[in-house]
Amino acid sequence: MASWLDEIKWNKDGLIPVIVQESNSLKILMHAWMNREALVKTHEDGVAVYWSRSRQSLWTKGETSGHIQKVESISLDCDADTILLTVKQEGGIACHTGRHSCFYRRLVDEKWDITEAIIKDPKEIYQ
Amino acid sequence: MASWLDEIKWNKDGLIPVIVQESNSLKILMHAWMNREALVKTHEDGVAVYWSRSRQSLWTKGETSGHIQKVESISLDCDADTILLTVKQEGGIACHTGRHSCFYRRLVDEKWDITEAIIKDPKEIYQ
Repeated sequence: MASWLDEIKWNKDGLIPVIVQESNSLKILMHAWMNREALVKTHEDGVAVYWSRSRQSLWTKGETSGHIQKVESISLDCDADTILLTVKQEGGIACHTGRHSCFYRRLVDEKWDITEAIIKDPKEIYQ
Repeated sequence: MASWLDEIKWNKDGLIPVIVQESNSLKILMHAWMNREALVKTHEDGVAVYWSRSRQSLWTKGETSGHIQKVESISLDCDADTILLTVKQEGGIACHTGRHSCFYRRLVDEKWDITEAIIKDPKEIYQ
């Protein structure tokens, strides 16, 4: 009966790309993927759950690090093939490198410059 | 010699997903895809060029509507498989429906509520 799920155009692998934006700073934290089950769990639990394409399994963001993402809103684009999630980022760290955002490299003079400092050593996060 | 391009992990179709964020409002405007040629053109011309998966061709955003996107920055994520583009949106309209952003539907009570007004009738934009 969840017709809102049927309005989504899942790709041929049954996935949809997800843009993750921090609700207070409006900063883009990461880009991930969800399948139907991940989106249902995210909506029901209010905590971001993604589909790991490398591990081929559901992945509750922060399950190891504690850096969970509390869902503020779930939006859909005009083509119904991308989700925008706004979240509160626990610990202020979304990236597995220990940085605030995964988008910490910026193109400057044909090189990817690192523009964000590591907040916490990954060895301390994932121990 | 453009080694910055070789650092990118293109998917099996030679594409990378692109998050498009408005630089002044920090609003997410749209989600699109680029191939290597689109990214080179975007970088060189300073105007967003995407790869249209439906038309299988390069697509300069705004070529018909005039709503071009002037590039402010190009960033890459930790996995090197997503681009974040910040832009100045000409005309303040990124969506083909005539709205500011493509993400104009928000999940409320198991329904996708329309949260943004149409700024300009698409019939006037694409005539």
